[in-house]
Amino acid sequence: MIQLLVTGKSGRMGQAVIQAASHEPAVLVTATHDAGENLVAAIAQANTVIDFTMHKFTGELLEAALKSGTHLVIGTTGHTDDERAAIREASAKLPIVYAPNFSIGVNTLFWLTQKAAQILTQDRFDIEVTEMHHRHKIDAPSGTARRLLEILNEETATSYDKDVAHGRFGNVGPRPPREIGMHTLRGGDVVGDHTVMFAADGERVELTHKASSRLTFAAGAVRAAVWLYDKPAGLYDMQDVLGLR
Amino acid sequence: MIQLLVTGKSGRMGQAVIQAASHEPAVLVTATHDAGENLVAAIAQANTVIDFTMHKFTGELLEAALKSGTHLVIGTTGHTDDERAAIREASAKLPIVYAPNFSIGVNTLFWLTQKAAQILTQDRFDIEVTEMHHRHKIDAPSGTARRLLEILNEETATSYDKDVAHGRFGNVGPRPPREIGMHTLRGGDVVGDHTVMFAADGERVELTHKASSRLTFAAGAVRAAVWLYDKPAGLYDMQDVLGLR
Amino acid sequence: MIQLLVTGKSGRMGQAVIQAASHEPAVLVTATHDAGENLVAAIAQANTVIDFTMHKFTGELLEAALKSGTHLVIGTTGHTDDERAAIREASAKLPIVYAPNFSIGVNTLFWLTQKAAQILTQDRFDIEVTEMHHRHKIDAPSGTARRLLEILNEETATSYDKDVAHGRFGNVGPRPPREIGMHTLRGGDVVGDHTVMFAADGERVELTHKASSRLTFAAGAVRAAVWLYDKPAGLYDMQDVLGLR
Amino acid sequence: MIQLLVTGKSGRMGQAVIQAASHEPAVLVTATHDAGENLVAAIAQANTVIDFTMHKFTGELLEAALKSGTHLVIGTTGHTDDERAAIREASAKLPIVYAPNFSIGVNTLFWLTQKAAQILTQDRFDIEVTEMHHRHKIDAPSGTARRLLEILNEETATSYDKDVAHGRFGNVGPRPPREIGMHTLRGGDVVGDHTVMFAADGERVELTHKASSRLTFAAGAVRAAVWLYDKPAGLYDMQDVLGLR
Repeated sequence: MIQLLVTGKSGRMGQAVIQAASHEPAVLVTATHDAGENLVAAIAQANTVIDFTMHKFTGELLEAALKSGTHLVIGTTGHTDDERAAIREASAKLPIVYAPNFSIGVNTLFWLTQKAAQILTQDRFDIEVTEMHHRHKIDAPSGTARRLLEILNEETATSYDKDVAHGRFGNVGPRPPREIGMHTLRGGDVVGDHTVMFAADGERVELTHKASSRLTFAAGAVRAAVWLYDKPAGLYDMQDVLGLR
Repeated sequence: MIQLLVTGKSGRMGQAVIQAASHEPAVLVTATHDAGENLVAAIAQANTVIDFTMHKFTGELLEAALKSGTHLVIGTTGHTDDERAAIREASAKLPIVYAPNFSIGVNTLFWLTQKAAQILTQDRFDIEVTEMHHRHKIDAPSGTARRLLEILNEETATSYDKDVAHGRFGNVGPRPPREIGMHTLRGGDVVGDHTVMFAADGERVELTHKASSRLTFAAGAVRAAVWLYDKPAGLYDMQDVLGLR
Repeated sequence: MIQLLVTGKSGRMGQAVIQAASHEPAVLVTATHDAGENLVAAIAQANTVIDFTMHKFTGELLEAALKSGTHLVIGTTGHTDDERAAIREASAKLPIVYAPNFSIGVNTLFWLTQKAAQILTQDRFDIEVTEMHHRHKIDAPSGTARRLLEILNEETATSYDKDVAHGRFGNVGPRPPREIGMHTLRGGDVVGDHTVMFAADGERVELTHKASSRLTFAAGAVRAAVWLYDKPAGLYDMQDVLGLR
Repeated sequence: MIQLLVTGKSGRMGQAVIQAASHEPAVLVTATHDAGENLVAAIAQANTVIDFTMHKFTGELLEAALKSGTHLVIGTTGHTDDERAAIREASAKLPIVYAPNFSIGVNTLFWLTQKAAQILTQDRFDIEVTEMHHRHKIDAPSGTARRLLEILNEETATSYDKDVAHGRFGNVGPRPPREIGMHTLRGGDVVGDHTVMFAADGERVELTHKASSRLTFAAGAVRAAVWLYDKPAGLYDMQDVLGLR
C-alpha cells in the first residue's frame, strides 16, 4: 500500500494529485504539506512523496527523505545544476522517479522524437521546437521542452548551450544547419502544448502533444508512485515507468 | 546505369521525375511515353520504368514489363482489388517498388504511426486521420491516407470496411472506441498534408507530414529506381528502400 | 436581479452554469431542474432560464415559459425544423437568446468568417471547415459548425443541403468550386475546436477557435441572461449580446 | 500599358515576377537588372519598377526613379529607419506601393488581425505571433510579421521596442499583460507561414496564413503595378490596392 505525502496541497497540482490518488485503490493520501509547515513530521507519515511545488524545495525534500527512507516522485522542473547533482546523489540510496512530464502522451512524444531524429537527420532536416503554456508559468522553456532538446542534442551531436536558439531577432543570417530553434509561447490558461518540427526542402514532419488537463500529469505521477514501490534505489523517469526503453 | 522510361511525360509528375532524374548521375532518361503512344517500343529502350499516371494504366504496363523484363516503380494509387492482385502476381517475376508515397518524410510518418499506435492504444486513445490535397485530385482519401489506415487497422485489429468512418453526419451517437475517423479535405494547390491524431482524456498526440513540392516524391521515386537495380524479383515499398523495417 | 432557473442541474453544463452564476453579482440561482422533475413549479421561481440539456426538451420549455413569461437562454443544438419554428414563434412574445455557442471567441470567429468570406471569395478560394469534439458528443457536425456553414452559405450563395460535403469517399472527381467541405472529428475529451480554411493557388487563410473549458460557454450564457433582462420580446443571439452587428 | 523593369532578374523573386507579368496582358517586361548593371540605363526603358532585391538597394533605386519619374513597387523588407524615411520622402513626388507582403491572403490577415484585436482585447486575451520561413532568410522577424506587430501595437497601445518579446529564456516570471510574444522559425524551404494567436482563460482564437508559392507574391506585385498606373504621387500599400480600407 502506498502511503502518500502530497506536498503543495493548496496548489493546483497538489489538488490534482489528491484527486488522482482517490481513483487509485493502491494509494492512500496519509499526509499533506504546504510551505511553512513541518516537513519532517509530514514525511514520517508516508512511504512515498509526490512533489509538484518548486525546484527550490527539492534540497529540503531530499534531506528529509534520505533520513526517513521515503520514496520520491519529483515533478518540479527548472533545477539548477547543483540541484540536479543532489538528486542524482540521493538516488544512490533512494528510489526516485524524476521526470519533466508524467503523461503517457508526452513520454510517447519523447520516444518518437528520438526515433524521428535518428531517421531524418541522415538527410538535412532543420529542427525547430515550440511550446505553449499558461500566462502564470515563470520559467522558459518548459521542463518538457528542455527534455526534448536534450534528446535532440544527443541524436544530432549538438549542444544545449551552443546550438539552441531561444528566439531570433535582427539580421541573423542564414540558418546554421546545426541550430535548433526553441520558441516559448505564453498565454491564457493553456495547460501545455509541445511541437517538434523537422523541415527539409519540400517537406516537413511535425510531432505534437497537447495537454488539456492537469489530471493527466497527476494520474501519471500516481502511476509512478505505485510502480516505484518495490524498486531498488536508483534514478528513474517515466520512460522506465511506461516500459519505453 | 539506370536507363529510365518516364510515363506520363507531359503531366506534372512526369515532368518532376524527369527533373529529379537529371540530378542523379546513375540515372539516364532514355525514353518517355504519353497516353496513346506505343508503350512496347518505349519500354524496349529502358531497364526501369517510373510510372505516376493512373491506376487504369497499370495492367498494360505490367504486361509490357513482364515481356521485356523491365523493373517497375509504381507510384499510382487508387487501384482496384484486381489491379493489386496483378501487381502481386507480376512481382513473382519482376522486382517492383509499389508505394503510395515516395517521400522520406511520409515513410517516416508511416513508421512513427505504427509505433505510436502500439504504445498508445494500450490505453484508450481515439484515432482520427485527416489529409488535404489540391482541388484537382479525384480520389478520396489519398493513397497515402489509405496506407496510414492499413497500418492503423493492423495495429488495432480493426477493419477498413467496417471501422473507418469517412466523415460523420447526423445523429451518429457516441463515438465507438474502435472507430477510426478519416477526413479528406480538398482545396487550392495543396501538394499534400496528412495528420494522424490520437486523442485521450486530457491529452492528444498528433503526427503530421506536409509536402510542399512534387520534387520530393519524384526524387524518392528516382532513389527507388536506383535501389531496385540489383534486387531480385519481389514486391517492395519505400520502407524497404529507406531501410525502415 | 436575475432569478435564474438552471435546467439539467446534474449535467456537466448545468454544473458549469451554476458555478459561473456564482461569480456574477447580478444573478441568483433560485431554482434548478432535472429530467423527470416538475418544470412548471421550477419555472415559477425564476425570471430567466438557462437551458443546456437536449433539443427535445425545448418544446416543453417554451410552453412553460410562455405561460409564466420567463426569459429564455437556449444553448441546446441539433433542433429539428419544427423545433426551430417553435422557438421563432415563442420569440414574438418572449425575449429569447438562442445561440449555437456562447463564447466571446467563437462569436468573434463567426464575425471574422463572414468578413473573410466577403473578401476572399472575390477570387477563387476553396472553403473547408473542420471541428473536433469529445467522444461523447452525439450530433455531427456541432451547432457551432452549422452556424459557420450558414454564414458561409449566405456569403457564397450556396446551399447547406446541396453544396456542403460531409466527408468525401471514393472517386469523387475534381472539387466543385461551390462545394464546402465539412469534417467532423471526435475523440478524447476535446471541449471544442473549429477551423475555417480558405485555400487558393499558392496560399491559405485559416481561422481557428479552440475551447479548453466549458466555463467559457457557461460564463457567456450568464452574460446573455443579464443582457436579456430589459429587452423586449424577440429572437437574439450572442452577436447581439456582444454588440458584434 | 505598364512597361516594367524587373530588378534582381536572376533571383528567385525576380524570376517569379517575370513569370507573373507574362500572365497579365496590361504588362510588358521592357527591362531587367541585376547587381552591378547600369540601373539608370535600365530604368529609362520602363515606367514602373518592381523590386524584390535587398533593402540596401532602395536608396539607389529611389534616386534613379526620382530622376526618371518612374513608379515604384517596393517589395524588400528589413529597412532601416533612414531608408524608410527616404521612401516616405520620395513618395511626395512619386506614386509608390511599399508593402511587406503582396498576397491577397496576407493582406486579408492584416485586416482580420486589426479587427480581432479590437474585439478581443476588450477582455484579456494574450497575443502571440509566430512565423516560419526557409533556411536562407537572413532577417528576423519577417517584414510581414513586423507589419502584424505594428497593427497589434496600434490597437493595444503597446510599443514595438518595449512590449514585443522576441523569444523567452530563463526565469522570465509571469507573462506581462501588455507583452506580445514574437517567435521566428526557420527551416527547409518554407515559403512563409504566419499565425496571430489570442489566448484567454478557456479559449484561443488563431488567425493563420500559409504561402506555398512565390508566384502569389509576384502576382500581387504585378497587380499593384497595374493599379499604380494612374495614381498620383503618394505612399500606398496592398490594403489600398485591394480596397481594404
